Amino acid sequence: MDLSLDLSVRGERSVVLYRALLEAIREGRLRSGDRLPASRTLAADLGLGRNTVTTVYERLVAEGHLEARTGSGTYVADVVPLPRRRPARAALRPRAGWAWTPRPVSGDSPPPAHDFRAGIPDGSLFPYDTWRRLVSARTRSATVPGTYAGPTGQPALRAAVARHLAYARGVQAEPDDIVTTHGTQHALDLVARVLLRPGDTVAVEDPGYPSARDLFAAHGCRVVPVRVDEEGLVVDELPERCRLVFVTPSHQFPLGPPLSLARRHALLDHARRHDLAVVEDDYDSEFRFVERPLDPLHRLDRDGRVIYVGTFSKSLLPALRLGYLVAPPGLLDALAAARQLSDGFGRPEAELALADFIDDGLMARHVRRATRVYAERRDLVATAAADLGLRLLPSAAGLHLTGVWDEGVSPADVEALLRAAAAEGVVAESLAGYCSLGRPAGVVLGYGAAATASIRPGMRRLARLRARAAGR
Amino acid sequence: MDLSLDLSVRGERSVVLYRALLEAIREGRLRSGDRLPASRTLAADLGLGRNTVTTVYERLVAEGHLEARTGSGTYVADVVPLPRRRPARAALRPRAGWAWTPRPVSGDSPPPAHDFRAGIPDGSLFPYDTWRRLVSARTRSATVPGTYAGPTGQPALRAAVARHLAYARGVQAEPDDIVTTHGTQHALDLVARVLLRPGDTVAVEDPGYPSARDLFAAHGCRVVPVRVDEEGLVVDELPERCRLVFVTPSHQFPLGPPLSLARRHALLDHARRHDLAVVEDDYDSEFRFVERPLDPLHRLDRDGRVIYVGTFSKSLLPALRLGYLVAPPGLLDALAAARQLSDGFGRPEAELALADFIDDGLMARHVRRATRVYAERRDLVATAAADLGLRLLPSAAGLHLTGVWDEGVSPADVEALLRAAAAEGVVAESLAGYCSLGRPAGVVLGYGAAATASIRPGMRRLARLRARAAGR
Repeated sequence: MDLSLDLSVRGERSVVLYRALLEAIREGRLRSGDRLPASRTLAADLGLGRNTVTTVYERLVAEGHLEARTGSGTYVADVVPLPRRRPARAALRPRAGWAWTPRPVSGDSPPPAHDFRAGIPDGSLFPYDTWRRLVSARTRSATVPGTYAGPTGQPALRAAVARHLAYARGVQAEPDDIVTTHGTQHALDLVARVLLRPGDTVAVEDPGYPSARDLFAAHGCRVVPVRVDEEGLVVDELPERCRLVFVTPSHQFPLGPPLSLARRHALLDHARRHDLAVVEDDYDSEFRFVERPLDPLHRLDRDGRVIYVGTFSKSLLPALRLGYLVAPPGLLDALAAARQLSDGFGRPEAELALADFIDDGLMARHVRRATRVYAERRDLVATAAADLGLRLLPSAAGLHLTGVWDEGVSPADVEALLRAAAAEGVVAESLAGYCSLGRPAGVVLGYGAAATASIRPGMRRLARLRARAAGR
Repeated sequence: MDLSLDLSVRGERSVVLYRALLEAIREGRLRSGDRLPASRTLAADLGLGRNTVTTVYERLVAEGHLEARTGSGTYVADVVPLPRRRPARAALRPRAGWAWTPRPVSGDSPPPAHDFRAGIPDGSLFPYDTWRRLVSARTRSATVPGTYAGPTGQPALRAAVARHLAYARGVQAEPDDIVTTHGTQHALDLVARVLLRPGDTVAVEDPGYPSARDLFAAHGCRVVPVRVDEEGLVVDELPERCRLVFVTPSHQFPLGPPLSLARRHALLDHARRHDLAVVEDDYDSEFRFVERPLDPLHRLDRDGRVIYVGTFSKSLLPALRLGYLVAPPGLLDALAAARQLSDGFGRPEAELALADFIDDGLMARHVRRATRVYAERRDLVATAAADLGLRLLPSAAGLHLTGVWDEGVSPADVEALLRAAAAEGVVAESLAGYCSLGRPAGVVLGYGAAATASIRPGMRRLARLRARAAGR
């Protein structure tokens, strides 16, 4: 038997040998009935310990790839080698009307040197050691048993979120008003399931959050973009006969300004008169740079029309996959059932670790600490924006600033600028990408992922490229 | 200020004091402007260290609940106390047609002494220490960064699942054919999103898995139950113009028999002629008690009509919330987009820990070890079933056996028997609960959660109660 095994890969020797042998069997280089070298021989040939080879043989025997014949040796079992690729068979296609493919995500590529992408928190601020300890402490048979848990999340996390919301956002919620989720997108999906039917109209802000728009459209809804001005959503322009309005009142995404108090009341008024639901997405306003925030819509709501949606993706990390919604009583059972039907329940040890993180005051400490870091970065971005000729829109919170050029710059100029900048390691997003009603010339400048020291030089490069394009 | 603080609760003293003070503020027992005792005084009153009190005061100041006035003391800040309960407001109701509320789950109640509930693996067999170590090793900024990951799951896990499927189930899949999920229910939901429209017909086995039926119905589909006989799904009785068939070929749920080879071919043939999709749910057949399993439908499928769905909920633990689907190429982008739109992506450190668990041979070892334990329990159940007059249906795999009474016992007798048994700590499920076409007199006997030593006495109690009911 001429057996070539590539053991040059890094990793534990027994795993590398196991994979190499399995590969040889799968590819048909080792065939049914082939006898393998004695473990002693192979060990000597490959410079491995004999125990390593024996362990691997035993595993392959247990898995049915090899057979041990007493007194004779070890043989490749009667297995059919798998073809390297299944034939491209395409009998099944998505249903008519399914028009979505995955969007590229921020983790797809290595971070640029000057990372002004929106909506990414700074992972280096996250207390990994503490988190690891909290998760480990909860990874026990008592918290992670063989049974199935309820769909709304661990009671301790719902209680902790209720307390967190009370002090951080002034949202009044009892633990039972809360359904934990994998994040904002998941919360929106649960809401859509129980409230919306195909053909229903949903109003979204424009500019606005593209993934919310896509989600409602994927539920078969008619999604109507509604203009945003300096006071936020233009409530007067909401469509007739609309079932749900999706808004970001604390920190309009992506423009930045909060929904004014007058508009908040107008929106709730409109909702009452037209019997519609309001989804309040409060995605990143834990990071607040002015003293007194406006009351959330949820707090102003008197007849239970507001569903408040929050996430730990920005305040901690997207990869924790933890968020929540606060819903009025009439929807809670339906939302819990929607979650149970569509994905069962959340991971108990992670939910309990987060409850501990909040209850031990670590969440408040993290937000305080991160807010100081982000405030400095925000100031650096704001100061440098003038050199770009940008007018920054007012913003009291969050992880990005948005600026517009009032004249002399076209959206095409912005695209060209950002392309040239990306080639120099400076990545930001065009505002036009968030719009469907118009194409403003503007740029969204995230500072969550941008190392503090990288901001000034990154902004300088942007300014230099802009000056060159303007012929100055 | 007459302040009563209940510190009798268990837990770290600073957390207990923090909660007690916060509660007092929220309930209005401490009011805006009230001055708190000096930290030294309160510490002495409560028998706490002064540092503990100072830390808690500082936290409450940072959160805005207290104000520190220099040279004067610490005061309750100008906060509005929250009412204990939000008024029951019910302006929002689920959409017309939404008819689901959460089902009770196995984790809702403490386990009975003789636990014959179906579909629960034995948590005590799970290697928590190893899992904790693997998850901790992956909880690092490199794997859990601030960015967003792709929706199909970590490549290392998809590669590990492909290898696991190849040896454990003979399923031929490349890593790119795989989408990781939170479990079977989540996989079914993704499939329904991209394949089904409201009004489409879906065929399910009867008896069958209630949560699959509910999920398809919640997508607005017409769900048609199709009879199951000793060879599994009666393919000849599939409805006309059906879009999708949901089957459990390895271990029919809940009856037990595998779908016969002839029926497997008939089903694929039918699918080809009528252009329909087949979902193959292989939920628990890692635990196999006979030598040669039949080839999965996925392996027999020649034109890409089968979507293979698997989970680690039975082979490891439900609370890991990890499963996968294997889909033909034409659906993969749509499924990935459905996952991205509806919940973003999975938890990277958990996915990578599972990949390590599989790649290091720990999965194969766990399945071998657990299979030995379950085989013993299965034998105990099978032996005792005769005393109940039960005819056990053939079953080659999994975590439960199903038995029927061929005559002399009504479904009502079964309900009465199981009620009486539950009162004595013996919990099993009536087969009739899984049926909509008929009401067979039978019982589903899970042995995953039943401690080995509890089986014989539990079955004896059942037999005694049955004999008493039969007047013997």
